[in-house]
Amino acid sequence: MTRLEQQLQFICEIDKVKNIFRQSYLTEGNRKENDAEHSWHIALMAVILKEYVPEADVAKVITMVLIHDLVEIDAGDTYAYDEEGAKTKRDRESACADRLFGMLPKEQGTMLRNLWEEFEAYETIDAKYAHLLDNLQPMLLNDATKGVSWKEHKVKKSQIYKRNEHIEETSKEIWEYMKQIVEKQIQLGNIEAD
Amino acid sequence: MTRLEQQLQFICEIDKVKNIFRQSYLTEGNRKENDAEHSWHIALMAVILKEYVPEADVAKVITMVLIHDLVEIDAGDTYAYDEEGAKTKRDRESACADRLFGMLPKEQGTMLRNLWEEFEAYETIDAKYAHLLDNLQPMLLNDATKGVSWKEHKVKKSQIYKRNEHIEETSKEIWEYMKQIVEKQIQLGNIEAD
Repeated sequence: MTRLEQQLQFICEIDKVKNIFRQSYLTEGNRKENDAEHSWHIALMAVILKEYVPEADVAKVITMVLIHDLVEIDAGDTYAYDEEGAKTKRDRESACADRLFGMLPKEQGTMLRNLWEEFEAYETIDAKYAHLLDNLQPMLLNDATKGVSWKEHKVKKSQIYKRNEHIEETSKEIWEYMKQIVEKQIQLGNIEAD
Repeated sequence: MTRLEQQLQFICEIDKVKNIFRQSYLTEGNRKENDAEHSWHIALMAVILKEYVPEADVAKVITMVLIHDLVEIDAGDTYAYDEEGAKTKRDRESACADRLFGMLPKEQGTMLRNLWEEFEAYETIDAKYAHLLDNLQPMLLNDATKGVSWKEHKVKKSQIYKRNEHIEETSKEIWEYMKQIVEKQIQLGNIEAD
């Protein structure tokens, strides 16, 4: 197999992420969103919102978010507030990362694997910006769809605050906006105050 | 409205591109692909295949392909081989570009509008790389799905060669691969030789 064929096989394999569905509904409310759509959305958000995290390397963050959910091809989507699923998430996703990134020429596979590990570790400013986008985007979709996904899962304020505990240190301005959404949706009865 | 609110309104508005469907089927064959999924796919392909177009500015190309289909939110998808639709495509898409990019703070809207115009003009090496990806990706999907979309539209070899006439000058190696797909699919009876 040539190097190009190896790369194109990977490109065809990752098409499967378009069939991994998440819990958020599209703003038009007609159906749930899948991982490819979500990743497209936050990649473009990385460009639009970069002024709020000026230290981040936007080109790197974009690649990071484009690949961050590929591991769900084998592992499936683990909902943000699924405590049982969270226990095995790392092992399931790590096995998928081995398989998928192993399909690429070695140096490319290693580069993308390292980027995924950096995202997961949530320590660098680039990983923090990627997580901010990954958390903000479903909040915008939920806000646009009368919190239907929050209601379906009976999500509590404390769960949202726990999940987003590092957003403030990444961007105070965006965290203020996210808190406003949460307060509004509590008033509307779509998030449980606790 | 604050600058952030303006940006977030744009981010919510472009969610609609997830409901603009194309003519290509996903590799798993279960349904057609939408613009957000397609844009995600070619953005990541821009990273994987950059060695074949080494002069391209990959970060710029990624942003270009992330936004290249946004104008279809109002204009709809015009199929590659739809001659009637092609006559009004530019006007329909240009009006949508005015509306969408006009939602953003001025300098951001101008930056993205210029990037879209650069893509459309198909002259710079970055635009050429973006078009290569935009044409290669549906060919990979068609190849993976027994050419079902080509068969549905009775696509001819001459139409494919016309559409891809500038790929060779962008990357000889990738054009060779694309020609192999076309020849194989002609043998299989999925593309009409003419």
